[in-house]
This record gives sequence, structure tokens and C-alpha cells, in this order.
Amino acid sequence: MSRDEHQPGRLLKAPEHFIGPEDVRRVADEARHGRRDFIRRAFAAAAGSAGVAHVAAGEGDPNILELPEHSKGLGQGVVTDGYGKPSKFEANVQRRQSPGLTQTRQASVSFAPLQSLFGIVTPSGLHFERHHQGWWDVDPSKHRLMINGSDAALVKTPRVFTMDELMRLPSVSRFHFIECGANTGMEWGNVAVPTCQYTHGMLSCSEFTGVPLKLLFELCGVDAKRGRYVLAEGADGSSMTRTIPMEFVESGEVFVAYGQNGEMLRPENGYPLRLVVPGVQGVSWVKYLRRLEVGDMPYNTKDETLHYVDLMPGGQHRQYTSIQECKSVVTTPSGGQVLLERGFYSINGLAWSGRGKVARVDVSTDGGRNWRRATLQSPVLTKALTRFSLDWVWDGSPALIQSRAIDETGYVQPTYAQLRKVRGARSIYHNNAIQTWLVQGSGEVKNVQLSA
Amino acid sequence: MSRDEHQPGRLLKAPEHFIGPEDVRRVADEARHGRRDFIRRAFAAAAGSAGVAHVAAGEGDPNILELPEHSKGLGQGVVTDGYGKPSKFEANVQRRQSPGLTQTRQASVSFAPLQSLFGIVTPSGLHFERHHQGWWDVDPSKHRLMINGSDAALVKTPRVFTMDELMRLPSVSRFHFIECGANTGMEWGNVAVPTCQYTHGMLSCSEFTGVPLKLLFELCGVDAKRGRYVLAEGADGSSMTRTIPMEFVESGEVFVAYGQNGEMLRPENGYPLRLVVPGVQGVSWVKYLRRLEVGDMPYNTKDETLHYVDLMPGGQHRQYTSIQECKSVVTTPSGGQVLLERGFYSINGLAWSGRGKVARVDVSTDGGRNWRRATLQSPVLTKALTRFSLDWVWDGSPALIQSRAIDETGYVQPTYAQLRKVRGARSIYHNNAIQTWLVQGSGEVKNVQLSA
Repeated sequence: MSRDEHQPGRLLKAPEHFIGPEDVRRVADEARHGRRDFIRRAFAAAAGSAGVAHVAAGEGDPNILELPEHSKGLGQGVVTDGYGKPSKFEANVQRRQSPGLTQTRQASVSFAPLQSLFGIVTPSGLHFERHHQGWWDVDPSKHRLMINGSDAALVKTPRVFTMDELMRLPSVSRFHFIECGANTGMEWGNVAVPTCQYTHGMLSCSEFTGVPLKLLFELCGVDAKRGRYVLAEGADGSSMTRTIPMEFVESGEVFVAYGQNGEMLRPENGYPLRLVVPGVQGVSWVKYLRRLEVGDMPYNTKDETLHYVDLMPGGQHRQYTSIQECKSVVTTPSGGQVLLERGFYSINGLAWSGRGKVARVDVSTDGGRNWRRATLQSPVLTKALTRFSLDWVWDGSPALIQSRAIDETGYVQPTYAQLRKVRGARSIYHNNAIQTWLVQGSGEVKNVQLSA
Repeated sequence: MSRDEHQPGRLLKAPEHFIGPEDVRRVADEARHGRRDFIRRAFAAAAGSAGVAHVAAGEGDPNILELPEHSKGLGQGVVTDGYGKPSKFEANVQRRQSPGLTQTRQASVSFAPLQSLFGIVTPSGLHFERHHQGWWDVDPSKHRLMINGSDAALVKTPRVFTMDELMRLPSVSRFHFIECGANTGMEWGNVAVPTCQYTHGMLSCSEFTGVPLKLLFELCGVDAKRGRYVLAEGADGSSMTRTIPMEFVESGEVFVAYGQNGEMLRPENGYPLRLVVPGVQGVSWVKYLRRLEVGDMPYNTKDETLHYVDLMPGGQHRQYTSIQECKSVVTTPSGGQVLLERGFYSINGLAWSGRGKVARVDVSTDGGRNWRRATLQSPVLTKALTRFSLDWVWDGSPALIQSRAIDETGYVQPTYAQLRKVRGARSIYHNNAIQTWLVQGSGEVKNVQLSA
């Protein structure tokens, strides 16, 4: 996200672009789950104002007594139009732009609807987008990946790979999260946006497939002793370039990916080739990857000096803080949703860490005074999203819902107070603070920040 | 698959519907990988007849020397039309019907393009389809799930659940394969179809999300001691009904699913609710699930007496063989693909077992004389697809490629000779034999069966 789009001064008054009377209704519509959406309608239609669902759904319910069309007729045939699509009843589950956040749709962001997602896989059709100069559907037969050195001694055999050459090499498939360094960036100063789609939706998780960069470097005779840095360059008009430390490559974790969730990458996500740098902010996962240069010092490109740096309280910028620290968010219940009655709810959400596996997630319903340990859904994978859940009975009184993740290094996700003490409130990037959702007596859920 | 559509006599001459001169070309087109497609084109365009890719892609390549449009211009904006789609260059990667296999598109099958997929997740848009009377986009606000007993004593509190009630309950998300019991069914008598899309494409794997049936049964006060069987009934016009043994429910593995790969189920796959019965053939994963009845004996419904039974050599039918035994298939190289030059290839494919985890996969390139142990890609999950791979250098001579999976129970995937010795050659269902692909000297890959 460029600083022009996101200067801190503006962030402090950011809520404005969400607060008109029609916006409140819009946000509540957006935040409804696929599920929430029909929760509301099912209750309204079947139960009238009674609101007790299993009575509503019992005897006398026309949805049981009357045989629906689909139990009598002949349905639609196979492969009606080749590639399947979601139900028409799920039209509310979509990526969204944050109103007023960017001036163009090419240098912009769309957020994944986390409030509507299950498990750990993000459907590729709902994967968040971050473009610096728009997306392209690049012809893979013409796409090339060049590997060279900043001086001749660093890479013995510079090479250019076609996609077919890359795809014939041994590959790995791994589940990893990708998070934009600016995710939750609007919340540094104050509450800025109403739903978890906007607070945390620059986050997705996929099974990526590709060739370990370590293998490609071996094929090219890279001198990894002297060449301690790699410049990754994209083919789109933004000339996106990022420095990747060689130690990440040596770990075997970095790969050049062509596959995502079983099929080729989507055009919005870098088709036909992007870099996967597990645990590291999304900007380093260079899309439309066309060149990797091995060098002996960091490159200090525009996107690592002007952008994606941390503005510290003293006015200095901190650079190269690229690893996404441990973080979590409750997605149900979350901002904009409405609890329609007292009773049982399964609080659930997502946790992740750029340092490895999530070890534990605690959940509080009283703003952090008391914590209960959540259940982690298996498999818990390294540098991947982890789904957690906790049983909860809502008694109808206001509740402050929080989650706090701890990763396998022992790092504990900080509160806003803790984070601001070190980092101030004028940053854009790398906000991994504990999120608070206020469940009001009315059942409406709001994004809030606690003063301490 | 109904017996009318698949009578064994017909299977023996099934290849006919694939063998016309235009069909050979069609099949080769279909079987090309997303990757193979541009392998061929990249070679042709850049290398002429030279065929050496890294020379082709080197100096003088206009794809390096000339700056493409996408490096100069402004691309497309975010969320152009809400829900993302694959690249236009991937149009060849699609579900397909087997020509002549069924007379209608409503009682039919579409096969997943296994030859083009990576990793273990099947994109929901490419998930195989099997409909008995077509698919519907059922309104979730009107959908109900009833749980009752065949007699009153078996279920203390019969209940009807709305979708919103189900979705408020504690959920699990798990990766599982689903395979139609008739997958590879056309191959019992002889080679019948040309590509792995048609031999094995009634197979997919997703992260499913839903509520454990055990929990629902507890809420209804089910007597699991006397009620040893469950009838699952779908809401579509086929009145699909299957018996599920109560022990599967008690294991905690069976759940009623609304989520698939992070979002709601797709309409073709049972939206808004289907049963997930890990390890068991797909027909038991009843779609549009509307009723579960607890009983004290198997129900012997039409789809477990007339269909999905095994015709044994003596002429008798074997019933209730619903667990999908350990099986594997090499997807690259596979039927219809073409190896364009000698040299390195990464043989890879999929293995799975309805009994648990895959323990090991061996690969042979000489028709089963010699075997080498393949690498299993982690995570290896229970009753989920497991991706395996093995490095291979093709010397240009004919090769017979096979894979043989072994699961954690020690069960070894059988050869056709072994399987036919017990089962004969007139079955439709539960063919888990070792698949053989012949790589011809020309590089063309064919489906073959070995006599011993």
C-alpha cells in the first residue's frame, strides 16, 4: 500500500468513509455470513417473532410438509458450463474494496470475506488481491524466469527458464498463509473499519505448488556464500522488486509457485508464476515473477525503503521487518454481525505465525480479564492458517471478544497498548495486535479498541 | 452409476466410443496438462525443431528482449467481477463427460481433470460430479434436516434442524477424498478409456466443514446400542437413500457438511448440506441431505441392492462393500500426454485409502518388475489424497509406468490379475487395481493392461 494512499493522518479519521446511515445497513449486509444471512431469513420466515428455531422448524413448517420442486423434478445436467461456480444464494460472499481507501482500482486492494469462510483453505476465487499496477492474464508460453548474478562470479550458469522447463522439475505442494504487510494497517491510530473483512481480510491461505528455489539455484551454480541476497522482480508494470535474504532460500522453504489450490495460480495472484516466501509479508511473494538476481547486499528498492517500512515514534523508519509475527482474529462473532438470540455460539477464528506453527490460542469474552484455551483444528501446519474454536453461551449482556495467539517460539500476540508503547500509532504496516469485538446487548457486534 | 448405463457386456467394447481419427486428437488435447499445453507451444514457438528448451529460452528470445505489454501498461482493477476465475489460458482444464457413457446429462457423471491438478486439494470448480437426477441450487433458508427413528424408542427427541441451527453448532474441518464407487469401473473387462481423467477422475479431495453426526445424535437422544444403522436421504428427485453403519458415526468421523474448501458447498456437490462419510464411496455422502433415520437393521434400498453391488464370478452380488480400498494412480505421465524429449521427468500421482493413511507408494517404470519408493508429500492425512513423486530420466525407450500404494493397515493395492482372480471381470464397482501407462518410443502415453 503506498504511503499516498494511507498516510497516518488520514487513518485517524478513516471511519468517516464508513459512517452514513446507508453505510451502516451496507456493512451489516456485508458482514453477514453466508450462514448469518440465512440465519436471519430462516428465523424471520419460519418463526415470525417467536425466534425459537427448533420450534419454528417443527410441525406445521411448510418446508417439511410440502414437497419442494427439487424433490419432484429433473435437475440440471453435469458440467453445465465447464467450471463450477458458487450457489446464487452465496452472492454476498465476495471480495470487497474498502470505500475511499484507494483512488484507483489498479493500485488497490480487495479484501477476503473472512467472516464467511470455514477451515483454513481460502477459495482462490475469494483470495485477497493487492495490485500495484493492476493484474494481467499473462500468456504462459511467453513467460520466462531469468536467474542471474549482480556480478558474474555469483551465478556460474545464468539461465532463463520457460514455464515448461520449470514444471518438469521436482515440485513441492505446501499450505501457507499469505498476509499483506499492511493488513490491519488502518487500525493503528484508532478504530477505522467495521468488519473483519476490512480489518484482517488481506489474508488468505492456499496449497501452493512449485519448485524449491534452492534447487533452481543449484542448477545455476549460485554462490550462496557470497551471494547473501536475492532480488525478486515481477513482470507487471509496477516493477515490483524485493530483496529476499539467502538464508530463507537455504532453508528450503522458498519456492517459485505455479499452482494454487490444485490448479494454476489465478491471474490476480500472479499467473503463471509467483514467489512463495512462507511467513513473510505478501509483497515479497512477487507476482508475475520474471527475474531473480543474486547479490551480496540488500537492494533497498522503492518497495522496501519508501513502502513497507515501520514509522517509529521517534520519526525514524524501520526497514526489512518482513516476517509476519504471530496474530489471530475471531471471525465469528465479528464486526457487523448480529447475534439474534441468547444461547450457544461456537466462537471461532484464525491464527497464524510467520515464525512457524501456532502453539496455542486463548479466547476472552470479557476484554482480556479471563482467558480460556481454544481448540485448534488439525492439521496445524507451519506458516499456515490455523482454525480455532471455543464453545460459548451468550447470556445477552455486552461482551468483549478477543483472541490471543502464541506460536511455537513462545511469542505472544500483543495488545494494542503493548504494541503502541513500542511502535507508536502512526505506522501502516505489521499491526498484529489483539482484536476486540464488542457484542452489544442488542446482539450487534462492533469493532472497538480498549484503552489499556 | 446405474447398471443400464454400464452393463459389463458393453464395457468390453467401450473403447469404440473413443476411437475415431478426430477422437485421438481430441483426447490428446484434453490430456495435456495446463502445463503440457504450453510445454508443447513454448517448444514449438521458441525452439523450432531444435527442441532444447534452455537454448530456446536463451539469448535472442523475443520473450526476453522485447518488453511485453503487461510490463508497460496499466492492468485490470481489483474485483473486476466479484468472484475470481481461472486464466483464459487454462480453458483446457475442465470437467468432462465420457462420450457415450450415459444417455442423459442429469443421470450422469463429469470427471475431474486429474492430469492437470497439483497437490491434494481439488478446486471446487473442478470437483467431479455424479448426479442421479440432476443438480439443484437449493434455497438454504428453506432446507431442513430431520433426525428421527424407525421406531419411537430409537430416538428420544426427533428434531428438525434449520441450516442456521446446524451452523451455530461446534464444527470440524477435515481434508478427505471422495471417490465414486464406480471410479475406474469401465476398466474391469479391458482397457476402455484413454486418459486418467476418465479412468480415475471420479475422485476429488476437499477440506470439508460441518457438524459431527455423533453430536447431532446426542442432541436427539439416539439409542446407539439398538439403533445400529442410519438411513441417509437426499432431497433431490432421485430419492437417494443409503444405509450408514452406526459404528462409523460413533467413530466421530461422519459429519453433516455445509463447507467445502473454505466456502459453502457447491450446488453440484449438495449445497447446502451433504453427508461426509470418510473412506466410504461417494454415493453414501448423500447430497441435499434432508433426513437421517436411525434403525435396527440395514435398509436395503435400491441404491444398495440394485446398484453399487459387486457382481462376483459365480453370478452372485456382493453387497455393502462401501469402503474404498487403497488405490493410486500416476497422473504425470498419463494417458494421452506426450513426452516431447528424453531426459528428466518428475513422475507424480495420487494415492488414497478408505482405511486410513497411505503408508507408502512404490513406482515402477518397467511394468512391475522393479519398484522404487516414491516420496510422499506432507501432510499425509487420514482418508485424504496423498501426492507422491519420483524422479525419473526417460531414455527414449518404451516404459510401463505403474504405482502401487500400501496403506497403514498393510493392505497392498492389487494388480488386475490379482483382482480379477477374486472378483472376475464383470463388476462395475470398487476397482482399485494398479494402473499401467505405456510410454511409447514416440513419447505418446497410452492406457494399457498387462496380461499377468
